[in-house]
Amino acid sequence: MKLRLLEDSNGLLVKILYLSCDPYKKFRMTKPYVLVYVEPFRPGSPLTGYGVARVLESGHPNFKKGDLLWGFTGQEEYPLLNAPETCFKIEDANLPPSYYTGLLGMPGMTAYAGFFEVCSPKKGETVFISEASGAVGQLVGQFAKLFGCYVVGSASSKEKVDLLKNKSGFDDAFNYKEELDLDAALKRCFPEGIDIYFENVGGKMLDAVLLSMKLHGRIAVCGMISQYNLEQPEGIHNLTNFILKRIRMEGFVVTDYYHLYPKFLEMVLPQIKEGKIVYVEDTPEGLENAPTALIGLFYGCNVGKQVVVVSHI
Amino acid sequence: MKLRLLEDSNGLLVKILYLSCDPYKKFRMTKPYVLVYVEPFRPGSPLTGYGVARVLESGHPNFKKGDLLWGFTGQEEYPLLNAPETCFKIEDANLPPSYYTGLLGMPGMTAYAGFFEVCSPKKGETVFISEASGAVGQLVGQFAKLFGCYVVGSASSKEKVDLLKNKSGFDDAFNYKEELDLDAALKRCFPEGIDIYFENVGGKMLDAVLLSMKLHGRIAVCGMISQYNLEQPEGIHNLTNFILKRIRMEGFVVTDYYHLYPKFLEMVLPQIKEGKIVYVEDTPEGLENAPTALIGLFYGCNVGKQVVVVSHI
Repeated sequence: MKLRLLEDSNGLLVKILYLSCDPYKKFRMTKPYVLVYVEPFRPGSPLTGYGVARVLESGHPNFKKGDLLWGFTGQEEYPLLNAPETCFKIEDANLPPSYYTGLLGMPGMTAYAGFFEVCSPKKGETVFISEASGAVGQLVGQFAKLFGCYVVGSASSKEKVDLLKNKSGFDDAFNYKEELDLDAALKRCFPEGIDIYFENVGGKMLDAVLLSMKLHGRIAVCGMISQYNLEQPEGIHNLTNFILKRIRMEGFVVTDYYHLYPKFLEMVLPQIKEGKIVYVEDTPEGLENAPTALIGLFYGCNVGKQVVVVSHI
Repeated sequence: MKLRLLEDSNGLLVKILYLSCDPYKKFRMTKPYVLVYVEPFRPGSPLTGYGVARVLESGHPNFKKGDLLWGFTGQEEYPLLNAPETCFKIEDANLPPSYYTGLLGMPGMTAYAGFFEVCSPKKGETVFISEASGAVGQLVGQFAKLFGCYVVGSASSKEKVDLLKNKSGFDDAFNYKEELDLDAALKRCFPEGIDIYFENVGGKMLDAVLLSMKLHGRIAVCGMISQYNLEQPEGIHNLTNFILKRIRMEGFVVTDYYHLYPKFLEMVLPQIKEGKIVYVEDTPEGLENAPTALIGLFYGCNVGKQVVVVSHI
């Protein structure tokens, strides 16, 4: 029997297990951007974002009570989902469901699409990833290593750098806060230059990277987190390198690539099961900690994918 | 009989008719760039660059005395060409040979490759071209119009703007020097936004264009002439639009596309003969005027393609 709320809809009543904290949410609080990217948050309404949930009542033929799903949900304990067809049913119950906020969800797809579709990598190429210990960065680096590239990442603490080098299998990593000269740091790590830059931060790092890009280098712009909270974004000065080195730079948004999700799972599920991918989560408990966790992203407080645990079952 | 100079080579002795003045020459005077782009000028040796020449003596089987060719030559009256296989023989004698410094030479191929190969245009899209009255810009605009796009250009004087609107068939054009607010000028010309930006100038114009780009917009970076003579290039602040609008920007160099030259001629020769293309040249006479003509490019002195006439026959 349908809940009365669901009687005339295809909706679902779900219980949220895990919520994802993602930098793009900043855009949803900033008017000029809303029309081209994603809906703005509406004052007085529950926030929305990616989450993992269990179905309590279903009005939709694709979902039944007890199913797990991930997708765009309310940032609440018991939201009502009116368009469940935009959510993905979780078929593989052998992995932690929280992974579907990250490795197996939007950030995983972002890393996959950004690296393989936008960067057009070739085996043996050199890859640099900024914010490399974050949700997306740590995966790009591992996908790139498994694919056969030389991979270096930057992060904001010694702890994160150690993680990249010793657990995530990066060839090298550095703490950008301890480098007086980013250009010199990049030249040290890439004496022959960078083929692919996976851009998560923008600003000074992008400016330095442009000096080290190789001929026909590619830059996938996934984010520019260092710029989102500035009144006036920093100026980038080295763009003439685009001509000198025939650089291609492309901004992308994962929603354009969700049709590749089955192909992505086909690649990544065996890699996870064979222990080839290390995945780190930062998992404070309680919905009340969601605002702090989100703000923490902009200060580099998280180590690994920032999740908020609302309920474990 | 071969000239003694040519006895043991495949070289050519040629007489220069027309020399091309091109902004990229600035790079050849600037050390850090030389390795990735083009050979530097060598103090004490003749300058080199694109030119149109008549063969006086030939040591190469592809060329005979009297042939016309275009390609990389010495900026002299009678250079010796040691690698004539890099030059293109001029087969169509019915058009002014000076056109092979521009419309039918490197700038024409630049416009063709940059627009059709880098920008991936679709009929009906909106196209903005900066420095639109220059050698490349005027051609990009006309190719785009003939292809079915809406085309607007910017230039540096009323005379050039009139030329674009009244002779080159642009839908609209503006004098950027008379616009207090480039963002407002672009919004006036493109109320719905820009699909394709053909970038010739860089700096403030690029920053303003980024605000008007449409979703999945494309930017072909052909040049950034406003930046080449600055100690420190201007800062570009609006790069977060790359993410918000999934913009793709790509620097390119025409030499990567010369294999398409026959395809280009197949398109453009009929268009010229049917009078569909208007082509303007700025043609001072005398090799001694070459330095002034080159420097003039950086001050917007030229109207149309800057050529130097060394000899008419």
